[in-house]
Amino acid sequence: MDNTKPIGVFDSGLGGLTVYKEMKKLMPSENFVYFGDTGRVPYGNRSNETISKYALQDEKFLLSHDVKLIVAACGTVSSLCVEEKSVFGIPFFNMIAPAVNMALELSKNGKIGITGTAATIRNGAHKKMLQDKGCVDIYETACPLFVPLVEEGLFDKDDPVVSGIIARYLQPIKDAGCDTVILGCTHYPVLSGAINDFFEGKVQLVNPGVALARAVKDYLNGCGGGNMGGGKTEFFVSDRPDCFVKQAGILLGEEAPCDITQIDIEKQV
Amino acid sequence: MDNTKPIGVFDSGLGGLTVYKEMKKLMPSENFVYFGDTGRVPYGNRSNETISKYALQDEKFLLSHDVKLIVAACGTVSSLCVEEKSVFGIPFFNMIAPAVNMALELSKNGKIGITGTAATIRNGAHKKMLQDKGCVDIYETACPLFVPLVEEGLFDKDDPVVSGIIARYLQPIKDAGCDTVILGCTHYPVLSGAINDFFEGKVQLVNPGVALARAVKDYLNGCGGGNMGGGKTEFFVSDRPDCFVKQAGILLGEEAPCDITQIDIEKQV
Repeated sequence: MDNTKPIGVFDSGLGGLTVYKEMKKLMPSENFVYFGDTGRVPYGNRSNETISKYALQDEKFLLSHDVKLIVAACGTVSSLCVEEKSVFGIPFFNMIAPAVNMALELSKNGKIGITGTAATIRNGAHKKMLQDKGCVDIYETACPLFVPLVEEGLFDKDDPVVSGIIARYLQPIKDAGCDTVILGCTHYPVLSGAINDFFEGKVQLVNPGVALARAVKDYLNGCGGGNMGGGKTEFFVSDRPDCFVKQAGILLGEEAPCDITQIDIEKQV
Repeated sequence: MDNTKPIGVFDSGLGGLTVYKEMKKLMPSENFVYFGDTGRVPYGNRSNETISKYALQDEKFLLSHDVKLIVAACGTVSSLCVEEKSVFGIPFFNMIAPAVNMALELSKNGKIGITGTAATIRNGAHKKMLQDKGCVDIYETACPLFVPLVEEGLFDKDDPVVSGIIARYLQPIKDAGCDTVILGCTHYPVLSGAINDFFEGKVQLVNPGVALARAVKDYLNGCGGGNMGGGKTEFFVSDRPDCFVKQAGILLGEEAPCDITQIDIEKQV
């Protein structure tokens, strides 16, 4: 592996920036190429066939930038692609295994909640992996309004609209007595404060970006593939970059990068 | 014009079904071809370039079914395409002029509110047309959470999450004393009951589908282009039909049609 090659990251849109942010924090010397499919976002309520077709185009685009590994920083894509190599033969990381492993580490009572988009919950990848590892007390809830809330800038824990929608979705997980909840969509960490409040601080929330970043770092350390002298990131999107500055800022928790290039993803056939 | 040709209707997704429903009610003897771009929905937060590109592909698809006129049953597309002929030379109806004309007919105090997606409000087509017709008291509000709410099946006027979000967006229009509000997105009529409640029944809501259906009927009557013996509808979508049965039922207010064909819209180049 050529250590200086960038890490390729893709998402249906900008949610993957919460994952990129954690990787950047943990591996500041790596180079990154981020692609957000903002022209076709969201993937979360599309069919599996459509999601797979889009994901393949996204991977092809990253490969054209000669990446050393690919991160599917999208809960929905990850719930469909749990393999460890991309179809193109390079290492492939998704959001499922790292989040599941972290949840199992954190949980004391073995009762684990899973949240995600409609497609993520329908595909059940977290649940299946938890069951394969012996966990039986699993409570799943699709939360389709969480992404629009975050994108609208509504995540203040004291906002009754925010807390009302959180309670609507998460009350069954609270009632079930889960002590650990997987945030199965990359937008959800922005709501961590409000979700934590709803659970009165009694539940461990698994931020999938934190879990993924650790897994990638462990992998690179293990194979000696880490970069010591990079630190650059290139950002690409499939719709006009200026439409996404506000959202990118919300998801990164800091000012959005101003150097973003638009590409035509449908040409990746 | 061959009267028996179908009326072509397209939308970014299924919101246009509220428009189709009103046309079908008013013109039961017409044939219809409906295309919902469910593989790329929503258009409302995309750039104008991307919306225009998608709309052109949608029109080409309808033309391949030999339609006699095209209805852009999508507030977002309509806000970009206010011309009266499609680029392909056949009559083209959008949601703007009919809604504006109905609002001006209904309003007594001349204070008109406009709601819509982020793109619809940004493009300001309703506002410009109202101003061109002499209206000066105009209050606009983008309501990005209304579509996800409807698609999640949340439109009950007694639901505090629903009423909370409605109040968040529409309080400025209420405070301004508008007596008429244009529902500038085809999903919004599903929220009519709850919006009406928020305004305590004191405001006239303009359902864009009702206004559009009247305009199309007037046009066909005027040119003798109406069909006396049709009544068939063909439905097409760009993602798996079975993913949309619940939403289609919500938007139609009745059981969704079971005969829906999936097509690849990106092949319309």
